[in-house]
Amino acid sequence: MQTDALILRAAKGLKVERTPVWVMRQAGRILPEYRAIRASLSGFKELVETPALAAEVSKQPVDILGVDAAIIFSDILVVPEAMGLPYQMLEQKGPWFEKTIETHADILRLNAHNAHENLQYVYDAIACLKKNLAGSVPIIGFAGAPWTIFCYMIEGKGSKTFSLAKKWLYQAPDLSHILLDKITEVTIQYLQEQVRAGADMLQIFDSWAEVLSPEAYRIFAIPYLDKISQAFAGKTPITLFSKGAHGSRKYLAALPCDTIGLDWTVDIAESRAIIGANKTLQGNLDPCVLYSSEAEIVKQTEKMLADFAGQRHIANLGHGVYPDTDWQKVKLFIDVVKNYKFKNA
Amino acid sequence: MQTDALILRAAKGLKVERTPVWVMRQAGRILPEYRAIRASLSGFKELVETPALAAEVSKQPVDILGVDAAIIFSDILVVPEAMGLPYQMLEQKGPWFEKTIETHADILRLNAHNAHENLQYVYDAIACLKKNLAGSVPIIGFAGAPWTIFCYMIEGKGSKTFSLAKKWLYQAPDLSHILLDKITEVTIQYLQEQVRAGADMLQIFDSWAEVLSPEAYRIFAIPYLDKISQAFAGKTPITLFSKGAHGSRKYLAALPCDTIGLDWTVDIAESRAIIGANKTLQGNLDPCVLYSSEAEIVKQTEKMLADFAGQRHIANLGHGVYPDTDWQKVKLFIDVVKNYKFKNA
Repeated sequence: MQTDALILRAAKGLKVERTPVWVMRQAGRILPEYRAIRASLSGFKELVETPALAAEVSKQPVDILGVDAAIIFSDILVVPEAMGLPYQMLEQKGPWFEKTIETHADILRLNAHNAHENLQYVYDAIACLKKNLAGSVPIIGFAGAPWTIFCYMIEGKGSKTFSLAKKWLYQAPDLSHILLDKITEVTIQYLQEQVRAGADMLQIFDSWAEVLSPEAYRIFAIPYLDKISQAFAGKTPITLFSKGAHGSRKYLAALPCDTIGLDWTVDIAESRAIIGANKTLQGNLDPCVLYSSEAEIVKQTEKMLADFAGQRHIANLGHGVYPDTDWQKVKLFIDVVKNYKFKNA
Repeated sequence: MQTDALILRAAKGLKVERTPVWVMRQAGRILPEYRAIRASLSGFKELVETPALAAEVSKQPVDILGVDAAIIFSDILVVPEAMGLPYQMLEQKGPWFEKTIETHADILRLNAHNAHENLQYVYDAIACLKKNLAGSVPIIGFAGAPWTIFCYMIEGKGSKTFSLAKKWLYQAPDLSHILLDKITEVTIQYLQEQVRAGADMLQIFDSWAEVLSPEAYRIFAIPYLDKISQAFAGKTPITLFSKGAHGSRKYLAALPCDTIGLDWTVDIAESRAIIGANKTLQGNLDPCVLYSSEAEIVKQTEKMLADFAGQRHIANLGHGVYPDTDWQKVKLFIDVVKNYKFKNA
């Protein structure tokens, strides 16, 4: 493992010579090289489940875009599947689960202790990627946050409000905690195996943080993010990205994670004031800025870098890159970060 | 018009003997009496376009739930339809537009100056409701905010990211302003006609405020909300509800509106500090709290009331009530507000 890699030093708060950069969803969608591989397969899941190919598309953005880390190509929904709820990824529609959690008995039937053993294909993909990268950049492993996985387990698909999942929190808080705890247990084991296979840092995606009030987030999300963070504290740098959780930044700041991801709706200086100096911040350009002219992309990216003021910053978008983004504009964003000179540096 | 009605006094910052209350989406969905009427019709739009029936379902929550205002039963998408983009409301799927805006020529073809004349059925519904209410409670007229209407005109349906609409802002800001300005012109005329027909106060719904950065909101939403607010300042109380625009509260506070609606993700005291003492605040209980036990609903509603500290507050949910909510629990929420005694009162 490259313990002195730029992005790992930034995560730990060590001195860096420039801001490291990667892009959420960099592996896939936007790259013609990815689409060529994807078109030769039966579907998205075949790619996720074939280690050599998952490793190949994970390495593409390192070679083509020049990012400072590779994130393993996978999906947060492999965890509920490993626990006993298989999913399909429907074209144009997104994920769909045939079975969902409706009762306490459904929760009891879920596979918890050994579920992580069903995800060997992810560990194999990481090991393959590790070998192919030959130490050039670190590997980011990842998982969905327990609250977001809970959402899909209850709803079985995407939702604007996730009101069915929230109904559980309000009608059956004790059962909800039991399910969230089970998901957390599997998630920690899953991430530990990813580290064993070669992941150098970790990110937790809480994609549906935005539907919870700060108080509900404090009760139903923070304790589980705390458990996950504690499992890796001092060992593997871990990033928490709770999209839309602007009101919960104060709670996230108290967890033993290294980095907190910011979406594009929060003010950078305000976030630093709430979170304090002891965390690295990641983000947070609006992915739609990459639809702009080159001049505008340069301007907005440089403004973002100046606002973060270097050190304890990992540059990224504030959300996964959108599929119809020109990959050359993503590369421009990355190049601007890599070439930026701080005025007082 | 009842100029001394409780909710109008609260909007204007005059003294009130208790906090007024209504519920977004109170007309429809949750009431069996609504469903009975709806089931006898060909679809949602027949109800919207039939004044006597729209008036009837608008009055139901006044009679059954005891709210302090009636909001006219309608849809924000009648405005793009009046401008030349007809929509369908698909069961389980939501709105769908056959034609969308793709070019400058499409914008030029939109009907602007006389579009509001196509919405006579809304004015007739308000006039009918006015007569039926016989002065018991005021009527709230409404429209979508220009940004939200722009989203539907470009995308033609719902979206998780509205990235196609945002692409316009970043790739064609001048054209975007032309379209936003046209929508604003129609919206003001539409709201003026609603007031003429009998609306006593107005609300602007910016349902997709949440996808814009505060800076983009300042540029592409605030100027149009300003124009709309100015058209009614000192005449008809107007509420701006920009869902998810936590980072734009400071900009909304500077507009000549009377009331600012808050969603359930923002802190009440923080919002008051950002917005100042000169606006009424509306909201903001998480609609999912109404899935809870009665005791929990009472507790959470009373906590919200205490946090708003009475005066310059209109109680509401932080989002439209969800369709699977028990109407008796909505009534409980309303009753708790109406019976609440402030400790220092």
